[in-house]
Amino acid sequence: MDIELYDAVQRLRFEHPQVRTVVVTSGKDKVFCAGANIKMLAAASHPAKVNFCKFTNETRNAMEDATAHSGQAYLAALNGTASGGGYELALACEHIMLIDDRSSVVSLPELPLLGVLPGTGGRTRLGDKRHGRRDLADYIATRSEGVGGRRALAWRLVDEVVPRPAWPGAVRDRARELAGRSSGPSSAGGIELTPLAKERGDDRVSYRYVSAALDPARGLAEITITGPDLDAPAGIDGVHELGAGFWTLAMTRELDDLILDLRTNEPTIGTWVLRTQGDPALVLDYDRLLLDHNDDWLASEIAHYLKRMLKRLDVTSRSLIALIEPGSCFAGCLLELALAADRGYHLAGVFEETDPDAEPAAVTVGPMNLGPLPMGNGLTRLQTRFLGDPEALIAVSGSAGAPQRAQDAERLGLVTFAPDDIDWEEEVRIAIEERASFSPDALTGMEANYRFAGPETIETKIFGRLTAWQNWIFTRPNASGPDGALRRYGTRRSAEFDRRRV
Amino acid sequence: MDIELYDAVQRLRFEHPQVRTVVVTSGKDKVFCAGANIKMLAAASHPAKVNFCKFTNETRNAMEDATAHSGQAYLAALNGTASGGGYELALACEHIMLIDDRSSVVSLPELPLLGVLPGTGGRTRLGDKRHGRRDLADYIATRSEGVGGRRALAWRLVDEVVPRPAWPGAVRDRARELAGRSSGPSSAGGIELTPLAKERGDDRVSYRYVSAALDPARGLAEITITGPDLDAPAGIDGVHELGAGFWTLAMTRELDDLILDLRTNEPTIGTWVLRTQGDPALVLDYDRLLLDHNDDWLASEIAHYLKRMLKRLDVTSRSLIALIEPGSCFAGCLLELALAADRGYHLAGVFEETDPDAEPAAVTVGPMNLGPLPMGNGLTRLQTRFLGDPEALIAVSGSAGAPQRAQDAERLGLVTFAPDDIDWEEEVRIAIEERASFSPDALTGMEANYRFAGPETIETKIFGRLTAWQNWIFTRPNASGPDGALRRYGTRRSAEFDRRRV
Repeated sequence: MDIELYDAVQRLRFEHPQVRTVVVTSGKDKVFCAGANIKMLAAASHPAKVNFCKFTNETRNAMEDATAHSGQAYLAALNGTASGGGYELALACEHIMLIDDRSSVVSLPELPLLGVLPGTGGRTRLGDKRHGRRDLADYIATRSEGVGGRRALAWRLVDEVVPRPAWPGAVRDRARELAGRSSGPSSAGGIELTPLAKERGDDRVSYRYVSAALDPARGLAEITITGPDLDAPAGIDGVHELGAGFWTLAMTRELDDLILDLRTNEPTIGTWVLRTQGDPALVLDYDRLLLDHNDDWLASEIAHYLKRMLKRLDVTSRSLIALIEPGSCFAGCLLELALAADRGYHLAGVFEETDPDAEPAAVTVGPMNLGPLPMGNGLTRLQTRFLGDPEALIAVSGSAGAPQRAQDAERLGLVTFAPDDIDWEEEVRIAIEERASFSPDALTGMEANYRFAGPETIETKIFGRLTAWQNWIFTRPNASGPDGALRRYGTRRSAEFDRRRV
Repeated sequence: MDIELYDAVQRLRFEHPQVRTVVVTSGKDKVFCAGANIKMLAAASHPAKVNFCKFTNETRNAMEDATAHSGQAYLAALNGTASGGGYELALACEHIMLIDDRSSVVSLPELPLLGVLPGTGGRTRLGDKRHGRRDLADYIATRSEGVGGRRALAWRLVDEVVPRPAWPGAVRDRARELAGRSSGPSSAGGIELTPLAKERGDDRVSYRYVSAALDPARGLAEITITGPDLDAPAGIDGVHELGAGFWTLAMTRELDDLILDLRTNEPTIGTWVLRTQGDPALVLDYDRLLLDHNDDWLASEIAHYLKRMLKRLDVTSRSLIALIEPGSCFAGCLLELALAADRGYHLAGVFEETDPDAEPAAVTVGPMNLGPLPMGNGLTRLQTRFLGDPEALIAVSGSAGAPQRAQDAERLGLVTFAPDDIDWEEEVRIAIEERASFSPDALTGMEANYRFAGPETIETKIFGRLTAWQNWIFTRPNASGPDGALRRYGTRRSAEFDRRRV
């Protein structure tokens, strides 16, 4: 269900840009019930559980992003009970309507029923987005039977309760009203998100512009992103003509798919090395074309999708190491990959033995790095990197457009280290090998801690707390042990808890 | 060591208010090494580990609070290596000096040595307080041998490196300089923090103004705080004369001690019920006396200590339920206890059978609730409670000085529920019993999530992430299992990890 939902949210933006309001509705029979999810959660392994929760929260963020940036407002029309994940979905909508029939309620029953806290997104939205009072939120979370009617309205759980006879008309009116409020290309035709040309083997994943070599023995994926293979179209019409074939969109879709694939299917591959290859000038040309036409719906959608894909990388629990070598194109939107990485190594000079005549690698800051691709904390990756060091940020921003070779990039703080040919192999090997020698859990905690520096938003709270509390609570015997609440759900036997408070 | 340190930080403020600079120094032989802590962590149970980390972070916050509000600056003079907890202590100081002798370093070696992340406070301070770059912080955390000299300075790990010959003079100069920068009572004599009159039994803890009845079978502690038993002194001189006997200070010290006692020694008591008894007018008089003299060093210290004690309650992983009954005095500083609680129940009317002639209970907002006692997020508990609801906040602030009985308190949002005599027993019993039936882990995650709503600061990040990541990583087999890094530390055998990334 959630994968279909994610796909639908994406397609609505690219294939049906004229749609203004999306009504998310439930049938009378608890379509919105979390039951299916619960069974899945109880059965799944710990990494799968957490991956699932992360993905559903990313999808809900994509809905909110569509509301904020595409003028596609989501309206939750709850014609029946919405519980657990179903109510969380409603919380991601712009407006929540609940039928007032004395039986339909909203609820977050995970605490009493399951002994876990999957509702990180739901709980955070209740407090920080909808400003529900904390003591009432506490009460709601203990009440598996939920809350409906006027109380749900007074406690800000929903925006509107509607008696049964008035329901169809009220939903229609509210959908029209939301549609009227939003701007956007009311008559634009969409583009088609054609299937990805993906090849998947045990040790290799490849697409047109993205490929990954998998080495499970070393816990390593080596990911290479290829820059544009053609000059950028002369104008925005060319982007519409190319559609899903336009480099930035194609690359973004492929990398988005790869991240989800590796995150889900390769949990023991703990380190991702990121390389690029191609012409940095072309990458900057493609960036410029999109930014020069940011009032065009498709150019705007592509930039927002790029933003979301990079955010997905930020919340991925893998060590990310960028290797900047001759022939690479870490410029503009692709430089964001190096800035998202936990470390960047930039070769000073060239590989003397294998390719002495190559051009030394450079990194180039472009307009894409200075605003259009904020992280979940609301800042650009450069702002986050130079938090509290405004001079460094000014120096880096001032370098825009000028390729920086290794020593200059290191001095500017764009890369972590700039070893030369003699030290490169050893330094990179150690970085990768030592990563594989550390506790995967401690790495996840440490990386998430460093990546979420600076201000916190609803988004960073959800993913930070999800990585942390979710992980903890799911793994505790009180949830996952043989007598834990998650295992015993549905067996009619109560969980047995270790009562020590931690 | 950490308990002594906490005690020293407190005594410096109350007993030696004229002290301007506190030099925290290390001997040549790694006095600052985390070795002792590591052995303790490896041996301790999960609740004890987490309690220890929480307590050390509270103590470091107390040092920073003294720097910010008492003009007592802490200066770290590292005449040798500072690693792990030792370097975290230095990070809590205003200024860090490191001797430049080619062997002394600072380090956070928990990831490579222990497979855990005890350095939540250290890592957060490195990024958010000292603005260390995230990729460099990543590198440092993987390097158990640490970083010294110029690199430590360039990477913002320390503020100053000093060659050996210049060391004694440089430390002296810096201490004088810090002392000259700060304001405060340069010649004031302190008061004595006399021993607490504490009686501790298996089922009861009691002090002069605070007592707790312990019921391990129900997982319940019933805590009662008694208001002032005398009129407030006529002026600030009376506060100095009473010293540690002044009600606000005595009550704060007692409740601070009780929180630490129950947190450490009673992990299975998961619910704390909070009651008060006494005259609300007197509580408000004591508050007013302190606030009217907030330029007096002792009045200021007492208010800041009250603030820190309430923050300790906020980060305590126990369910807190305030019961507001006839005879209670939830006014001003004691109303903060009800606002810190996860829920508040306020009896509407009186207990008809047992005390029909009592005065119904009221809660009273006072100036103490409107600014002087901020939470770790920088907001008052009222601002946090009414986040995003400015009208409710204005209404509540406007009620200052006027006692509010149950229905008005409920309408204003100061309490969660206002049952009458008929429903009281049942509602309260259910709330307490159901709390004991839920997963203690899920409760900890949920409560911390709701309590830390709104803006995040270094402080809320440390405690939020500590509750979460710390808990998670400590309990994982990769750390605490028989082959985990924490267990194998010092055995010369490497840890064996489940390599799946979560």
